[in-house]
Amino acid sequence: MTKAEKLRRLFKSNRLIRVAGAHNGVSAKLVEANGFDAVWASGFEISTSHAVPDASILTMSELLEAARNMNESTTIPVIADCDSGFGEVRNTKYMVRKYEAAGIAAVCIEDKRFPKLNSFVNGDQSLVSIDEFVEKLHGAKKAQTSPDFMVFARIEAFIAGLGIDEALARAHAYADAGADAILIHSKKRTSEQVFEFAHAWRNRIPTVIVPTTYYEVTTSDLEQVDVSMVIYANHAMRAAIKAMDQTLAGIIRTGTVSTVEQDIASMERVFELQGIVE
Amino acid sequence: MTKAEKLRRLFKSNRLIRVAGAHNGVSAKLVEANGFDAVWASGFEISTSHAVPDASILTMSELLEAARNMNESTTIPVIADCDSGFGEVRNTKYMVRKYEAAGIAAVCIEDKRFPKLNSFVNGDQSLVSIDEFVEKLHGAKKAQTSPDFMVFARIEAFIAGLGIDEALARAHAYADAGADAILIHSKKRTSEQVFEFAHAWRNRIPTVIVPTTYYEVTTSDLEQVDVSMVIYANHAMRAAIKAMDQTLAGIIRTGTVSTVEQDIASMERVFELQGIVE
Amino acid sequence: MTKAEKLRRLFKSNRLIRVAGAHNGVSAKLVEANGFDAVWASGFEISTSHAVPDASILTMSELLEAARNMNESTTIPVIADCDSGFGEVRNTKYMVRKYEAAGIAAVCIEDKRFPKLNSFVNGDQSLVSIDEFVEKLHGAKKAQTSPDFMVFARIEAFIAGLGIDEALARAHAYADAGADAILIHSKKRTSEQVFEFAHAWRNRIPTVIVPTTYYEVTTSDLEQVDVSMVIYANHAMRAAIKAMDQTLAGIIRTGTVSTVEQDIASMERVFELQGIVE
Amino acid sequence: MTKAEKLRRLFKSNRLIRVAGAHNGVSAKLVEANGFDAVWASGFEISTSHAVPDASILTMSELLEAARNMNESTTIPVIADCDSGFGEVRNTKYMVRKYEAAGIAAVCIEDKRFPKLNSFVNGDQSLVSIDEFVEKLHGAKKAQTSPDFMVFARIEAFIAGLGIDEALARAHAYADAGADAILIHSKKRTSEQVFEFAHAWRNRIPTVIVPTTYYEVTTSDLEQVDVSMVIYANHAMRAAIKAMDQTLAGIIRTGTVSTVEQDIASMERVFELQGIVE
Repeated sequence: MTKAEKLRRLFKSNRLIRVAGAHNGVSAKLVEANGFDAVWASGFEISTSHAVPDASILTMSELLEAARNMNESTTIPVIADCDSGFGEVRNTKYMVRKYEAAGIAAVCIEDKRFPKLNSFVNGDQSLVSIDEFVEKLHGAKKAQTSPDFMVFARIEAFIAGLGIDEALARAHAYADAGADAILIHSKKRTSEQVFEFAHAWRNRIPTVIVPTTYYEVTTSDLEQVDVSMVIYANHAMRAAIKAMDQTLAGIIRTGTVSTVEQDIASMERVFELQGIVE
Repeated sequence: MTKAEKLRRLFKSNRLIRVAGAHNGVSAKLVEANGFDAVWASGFEISTSHAVPDASILTMSELLEAARNMNESTTIPVIADCDSGFGEVRNTKYMVRKYEAAGIAAVCIEDKRFPKLNSFVNGDQSLVSIDEFVEKLHGAKKAQTSPDFMVFARIEAFIAGLGIDEALARAHAYADAGADAILIHSKKRTSEQVFEFAHAWRNRIPTVIVPTTYYEVTTSDLEQVDVSMVIYANHAMRAAIKAMDQTLAGIIRTGTVSTVEQDIASMERVFELQGIVE
Repeated sequence: MTKAEKLRRLFKSNRLIRVAGAHNGVSAKLVEANGFDAVWASGFEISTSHAVPDASILTMSELLEAARNMNESTTIPVIADCDSGFGEVRNTKYMVRKYEAAGIAAVCIEDKRFPKLNSFVNGDQSLVSIDEFVEKLHGAKKAQTSPDFMVFARIEAFIAGLGIDEALARAHAYADAGADAILIHSKKRTSEQVFEFAHAWRNRIPTVIVPTTYYEVTTSDLEQVDVSMVIYANHAMRAAIKAMDQTLAGIIRTGTVSTVEQDIASMERVFELQGIVE
Repeated sequence: MTKAEKLRRLFKSNRLIRVAGAHNGVSAKLVEANGFDAVWASGFEISTSHAVPDASILTMSELLEAARNMNESTTIPVIADCDSGFGEVRNTKYMVRKYEAAGIAAVCIEDKRFPKLNSFVNGDQSLVSIDEFVEKLHGAKKAQTSPDFMVFARIEAFIAGLGIDEALARAHAYADAGADAILIHSKKRTSEQVFEFAHAWRNRIPTVIVPTTYYEVTTSDLEQVDVSMVIYANHAMRAAIKAMDQTLAGIIRTGTVSTVEQDIASMERVFELQGIVE
């Protein structure tokens, strides 16, 4: 069974699909080990790992290489965050072929311009027209070779300050264009905005949410609305940063590892995650 | 001032040089931010990040790309862990040219065979002959174009179960061959073994140590023996693993991010580490 | 002497600088061996080598890797064809830092949109506004760390069907913005159009031309107008394609290599180009 | 149908399979366009393209990236020349997983040490023991996930100066170990040596030959002996080198492209090979 088939099967299960973001092989492996259903190859996390802004600075080559490593390190599907598709329709078609050939289960593209800016950063968040993005989705769906490969359409209408009507109009147009799921993004402090969308949308095609700013939402809450998938998109990286910072500070401050040795993974645990030497 | 010059200057400072391991741009940036003098582009950490054993599985291309990213993300020197030099003399010469061209300040090569096995793993740890490694050091030193670029010779005699005489014989031969520093490795639970070496060696050329198993050693201890540099080679990665594991487990267990939000870096902190969007 | 200094020196020599396009290490080496002054890391050639359209399909990572290989295989400067700078100002600044760190002597950016289309292909060739490109040039010049690194501004006004006034207005604005040379592109069958530009421009800053369609122009012709550099941008690749095609066809047709053995390089010649095994 | 299945089908056809070497996407595309049955992703050609010796200087990453590009540019199977498997058994197993995941139909590994030296270069050509190579073949076959993927065993006994008995003993051991084909290499000026092998071996498993030095052999000759596949391993690259050299020399000598324009591919032909801009 391919990873794309596995992901399709998850969507048919009618239970909330839980996904977590990763940025390399080992973080992806931890996502799987902790019971998540799929890995989100996060552009935000991968950009952070390279210490560059999440603003179309990394190239598709770098993002694909990271996603490939996550895919080869896990047995669960990988969903690749592909920003706005790396240019125009022709770039997006080329991208789909490359990601599908690498065994990635799904790609997610958003209705912003290239180069894009992270949704939580102040700056230009203007959208492309519905027609332009519909054309991109058509191209993406036409470029895939297996029927199982999935294309998520990410709607940035709320991020751009637009309302529920615009979000729904886009969702319908994208579903009509062949999108396999709608990722509705929001930077509100509560889940009210995305829930309003979910109530109106009623999972015409599956709804995906990313609770970064409305982090208090629970899986119980989500099971009561029409949401198919929740992506915890950046928490692994944020955990890693805080821990590395504290450990490095501790070594400098105390002049010894003794004070941090209990707070870090053992060498044996690391060898286990690396895999057995054959 | 090049990074190689900066590293040379650190060695002339007569104070203990503190270095920490990293595996990508952001971990390197945290190493610098916490006050370390240089970054160790650790083969062990980079292998872990790719979820593969530290056993010459990753290629020089992958290790170099990671080191380049660390170098471009920091203003302090990067010392690259280059295993056994990726083959024979000709491979090591090619490697030196590539790393030097990438702006890396120093490379470290060890006197084990290719493919190598991590020093803390049970398995074949047999060494190459002194003559063979001396030839490799000659090649490395001849290949560099700037006089400032440094080549560290890492002695695995203690790892291979050999004694102080063998370690010292190798150190002298490697220093004679042009090595710029001696990294003396040990997997003992205390620092006794490396200190015995340091007392006998008396920093004929600078001594570098890596306190992984003898983690209780302190910088005060080190300032009382002839050791020039201490490398905390894997602690950032081990901190990251434990934290990612706990955070992901917490989200699965409680069904919400609320319970972990206080233990992870804020989005603002991440944006800061990514660098300003220009 | 850095390669950027070498290139600056060539511009001060007051003789016509001859440059040829390449797509990998060996073609670059042949450019140098035949007496050209510099290598043009051609986006068209590199795209062709990957069998993809010259339409912003390859990423900066792939183009940079090819340019780096050319640079490491030669002792003459490499000028990298960087399309429209891979996005907006921030992408171009990032690009300049990466290319300069790789030892590339100069980059050339053109005043078209991203994603761009090859200038000889029918399709959208619309330009960005002068202000937008001036901002990109400012960013590029500000991003370089050594004063010797050069940024060429490529004017696509003639390609877009605009006239000499627009071309000159752009040239002046780009020179004011800090561009180090003007590449004036044309797809006319004769050199008349670029010569008209050269006569009016009078090398306020150095003029660079690319005689692909007006291939009958001679270096004697060029020495009589104000042109500083001529780039034969795609001829090595076009030669390679025809020869590979004929050789492969010959083997299939005759069922033996005997009939083509005299028309191909000897193994000894190839070993020579690979470099000595050390 | 996967490419590995296509290759298996060719071997079942009972006609001589004709294969040509390539080094990038466009040369692979020309191999297909001229009617060859498969592409040989030649280590010699790829090393040449990077202007480095064919002596394990390029890493597996670089060779795989080139093979991937060839595979994505063609519809015929790609057989990847994988030197001695990049190290020990564990490296070879990792290699098989990477190449198979990239859609490559077959890999070929040879019974020489790592780092290897090109078979036509004077220098150390010593072989590994039969047992050691048998273990590597076991590892390779065990690592593949689809039954169609093929592993060719390349025998360098003749290159190492050994005789027919050694070659046959190795062939039998490698076939017993699960190899899918035997590539018997020779640097003799005539085909006598490989034909002697073929007569004795009688295609117990398919025989593959590489007529570089015995270039006068014809497909008619080969159809009369038990040979399944002929690989013209380096002729595309050798054709390209001679043509690029002559074209560049011509431009320098005459100061114009006019004198070479008829001997190089037209821009239209190049656009055709790049593929249509979508």
